[in-house]
Amino acid sequence: MRAVKAPSADRAATARAAIRAGRHTGPTSGLAPGFAQANLVVLPHTHALDFLRFCVRNPQACPLLEVTDTGSPHPAAVASDADLRTDLPRYRVLRDGMCTDEPADISPYWDEHLVGFLLGCSFTFEWALAAAGLPIAHQRQGVNVPMYVTDRECVPAGAFHGPMVVSMRPLPAHHVPRAVEITGRFPAMHGAPVHIGDPADLGIDDLGVPDFGDPVRIAPDEVPVFWACGVTPQVVALNAAPPLAIFHAPGHMFITDRPHAHYDSAVRDHITETPEGHR
Amino acid sequence: MRAVKAPSADRAATARAAIRAGRHTGPTSGLAPGFAQANLVVLPHTHALDFLRFCVRNPQACPLLEVTDTGSPHPAAVASDADLRTDLPRYRVLRDGMCTDEPADISPYWDEHLVGFLLGCSFTFEWALAAAGLPIAHQRQGVNVPMYVTDRECVPAGAFHGPMVVSMRPLPAHHVPRAVEITGRFPAMHGAPVHIGDPADLGIDDLGVPDFGDPVRIAPDEVPVFWACGVTPQVVALNAAPPLAIFHAPGHMFITDRPHAHYDSAVRDHITETPEGHR
Repeated sequence: MRAVKAPSADRAATARAAIRAGRHTGPTSGLAPGFAQANLVVLPHTHALDFLRFCVRNPQACPLLEVTDTGSPHPAAVASDADLRTDLPRYRVLRDGMCTDEPADISPYWDEHLVGFLLGCSFTFEWALAAAGLPIAHQRQGVNVPMYVTDRECVPAGAFHGPMVVSMRPLPAHHVPRAVEITGRFPAMHGAPVHIGDPADLGIDDLGVPDFGDPVRIAPDEVPVFWACGVTPQVVALNAAPPLAIFHAPGHMFITDRPHAHYDSAVRDHITETPEGHR
Repeated sequence: MRAVKAPSADRAATARAAIRAGRHTGPTSGLAPGFAQANLVVLPHTHALDFLRFCVRNPQACPLLEVTDTGSPHPAAVASDADLRTDLPRYRVLRDGMCTDEPADISPYWDEHLVGFLLGCSFTFEWALAAAGLPIAHQRQGVNVPMYVTDRECVPAGAFHGPMVVSMRPLPAHHVPRAVEITGRFPAMHGAPVHIGDPADLGIDDLGVPDFGDPVRIAPDEVPVFWACGVTPQVVALNAAPPLAIFHAPGHMFITDRPHAHYDSAVRDHITETPEGHR
């Protein structure tokens, strides 16, 4: 177990301020290095309880980091002074399951009936894989991670139902056991892989044609490794078709005040968790 | 990593059936060995969303295993054919925060507005500690584990607020690191300790006078080790004082179909999780 120096949360706040002011408008990968980023889901409170049930029943695809109070855009437990309406570079707005807008600010859509959910994101375990020296193919190839809709149904909750979406990272076979161990330390960031090897076992016909993201080249000595993916709730919300749903735009995530190590079950500081989160 | 033989879920169902039929009426410790047991909380749906927020914000004290559909007493994802109204040996019923009944069957209280929550229980990590050969003092001394109300406030959510409750197990100092590692593998069962050593750091004046459970003797070479405790939501619900709240009676837990290893981040079978939970 290595020593982890916790970065100052000021850097996360500075990055959010730059986004809020429109000085940073692109994807958040590489921004505020060291801090966990999160998937955003915003739903009317009428759908919040069933969506929470869905997350509890499908923790690998939908690991909950925080749920705001109804009407509040402030996820105070994971980021002080943050505002979910302005602190992500870009959003996707869906009405009745159809994307109607991709704004950089959702203040005009916000009202007292909305609830914001933050879900764990694979950036944290990719950081841990890279820290251990494992190659991350899509980063080396300069493309987005490939994602696939599987034939594996999530456990449904109310109107929320649909298939699990997975991301795929090819790894040299001798690295796979370490990748399982490392990502398994981050249960709040999708955790260990859900599948290793033959994509047909997940109902995936062709790795070269991902449903989201870009294809990656797989070397002869590499094995495809599949993790549950935070895009799952977006696909599921299309099925549920609430009157309004708002997500981060792909790659345009929310930056928390929590260093990656906060979510590492092997090194996190359990003793300070509660005071840190207390408001 | 050792091999784990998964016990047949029939044994859990058999134990629940014995409870339902009134053939088993006492505490559930030692019943259906090998299967995870759970804390029960039942609340009106009007309080369900805030209680879920409370659990997400305080995952060490309130690790969520399952949330039933509103009105449904069937936690299908963790136990097939189970009924939360009859499958625990004894319950505590609170009206407006006051205990009014301790029945063996809550069917008369159940209606279409109630939601059942199952939370992780320390029996699973005690099983793992014992499997590793670590001594569990309260078991050896034949008493209940001592529990203490701390001065550490949980992160609040709506009406739900209050202090974290901890359980304490003294361990020989040389066993403490292993105990941290072992229990840390079970984040859904309270995870690693929240504190090791001086009880005054948690605002506990006298280990000899627990708030719940029984005092245990601590040998000179032993260190008190504290874990977040599933009694926390009961204390918090007293503060929230919903019109109706139902809990398991102390030690009278719900038996799930899931073997302990299902919740072990080091050995669980990630690949089969979703089909198993799918209904």
